[in-house]
Amino acid sequence: MALSFTEDHDNRPIGVFDSGIGGITVLRELVKAFPNESFLYLGDTARLPYGSKSGDTVKQYSQQNMKFLASRDVKAIVVACNTASTQISESSFMGLPVYNVIDPGSALACARTENKKIAVLATRGTISTGAYTKKIQAILPDAEVLTQACPLFVPLAEEGWYDDPLTNLVAFRYLQHLKAADVDTVVMGCTHYPLLKNSIRKVFGNHVHLVDSGEAISLLLAEDFKSKKIAPAEENQHSTLTIALTDASDHFENLSNELLCAVMSSEIHFETVSVI
Amino acid sequence: MALSFTEDHDNRPIGVFDSGIGGITVLRELVKAFPNESFLYLGDTARLPYGSKSGDTVKQYSQQNMKFLASRDVKAIVVACNTASTQISESSFMGLPVYNVIDPGSALACARTENKKIAVLATRGTISTGAYTKKIQAILPDAEVLTQACPLFVPLAEEGWYDDPLTNLVAFRYLQHLKAADVDTVVMGCTHYPLLKNSIRKVFGNHVHLVDSGEAISLLLAEDFKSKKIAPAEENQHSTLTIALTDASDHFENLSNELLCAVMSSEIHFETVSVI
Repeated sequence: MALSFTEDHDNRPIGVFDSGIGGITVLRELVKAFPNESFLYLGDTARLPYGSKSGDTVKQYSQQNMKFLASRDVKAIVVACNTASTQISESSFMGLPVYNVIDPGSALACARTENKKIAVLATRGTISTGAYTKKIQAILPDAEVLTQACPLFVPLAEEGWYDDPLTNLVAFRYLQHLKAADVDTVVMGCTHYPLLKNSIRKVFGNHVHLVDSGEAISLLLAEDFKSKKIAPAEENQHSTLTIALTDASDHFENLSNELLCAVMSSEIHFETVSVI
Repeated sequence: MALSFTEDHDNRPIGVFDSGIGGITVLRELVKAFPNESFLYLGDTARLPYGSKSGDTVKQYSQQNMKFLASRDVKAIVVACNTASTQISESSFMGLPVYNVIDPGSALACARTENKKIAVLATRGTISTGAYTKKIQAILPDAEVLTQACPLFVPLAEEGWYDDPLTNLVAFRYLQHLKAADVDTVVMGCTHYPLLKNSIRKVFGNHVHLVDSGEAISLLLAEDFKSKKIAPAEENQHSTLTIALTDASDHFENLSNELLCAVMSSEIHFETVSVI
């Protein structure tokens, strides 16, 4: 059996988890940015969504998910869920580097804003922790951070009503006051929200920066590959993509295929697993 | 200590469970219909929603919830969740009578329809089991049953957008084809949906019968009190209402108070519990 990693290369997959489908938008950006890498995605569909659950419950579920990924020999863990990221502050778990979505998303928002007025759109759970506000103001102490929970966005995205007059109306209902407050940067602080990018864009117009967690985390990972903090896969390796779900669902499999088909070269392998 | 029940009376509470807030619409009808009864409501908020989960998972969670209610000495169990009702076919559990919402809802729809064209609105999970269609056609073999999953309805209800142009638009999107198909009876086959009754009514007009699970189950319970299948509470007992949640939530407590204040005489007692 060949070793899966040497000093310079590591062909083990990158582990990614979310409560459900949302993290697929992060996975999509990662697959696009790193076509040689293999990925193992865990969707904790049996216990979704995390957005409405308490911090302790989300922390416990997230640790179980990370243990599962570690047991499958990943080389790094991406917490592709904002709610889970509010509860996972550690940068390593069982010796593996851990990337949450809040740190890179906050950093990218701070890099892009000019007038220092930043809006954060997220689930009720993420907003109530104040995680983005704290992180952004740690980087830019005089930034003004406005937050908005958008509970309809997740089911709208799951319906596939991506560019739809109804979705536009919901977006206007939630976001109009942020546009009026003249924010110049908007963090899409839930991994489902990039699916509704067109509707969000319609409210704010083209001059506002929309920060996508998947893009932010890809930029950070690219830096860590460059600085050799983690080793990349070999260029000629046959990369794989496995999606493990805690509760099987045709709806989820169809959505994953639809969202990933444009960036994937090989087939997705689906599994049903237990993480408890 | 006084005995809580005699041959004719039983002051023990009726246990009611749902994954979250939806079952409160059933509880509201029960409290309205039986003001002398005490109730213990269990909202499995740590694992909500059930609508998107597999049958086996929902069955396991439901049995854990029923065990919890039995351990708290209820005299009967109401499964105030359509998805859970699709998995609980037994009419008793640990010696306690069990009432699901699908049997009485189907029976009431069959009693009310004239043209035998019935629509069932529910979550994806409930629809995919075919439970309502089977039950309705067991009573009325030549009934035509049209089904429609309405995933946006639950978050719209939870936002409190009960009588709102946006909700009306979503209702039209989901239901217009059922109106065009000339159904004369509509089963609101998810316990959240009665909160959106006004919007659903706007699509179908006043001549269509809307079947509410809470109303259907209250009619069945009234029959069982009358036939002495279960004993009612004494008329002068001080009735209580306890809401136990598997994951505490201010949002849920506020919504419960809002939905129940019109029918409650005493205060609601909230608890956080574990059912595993």
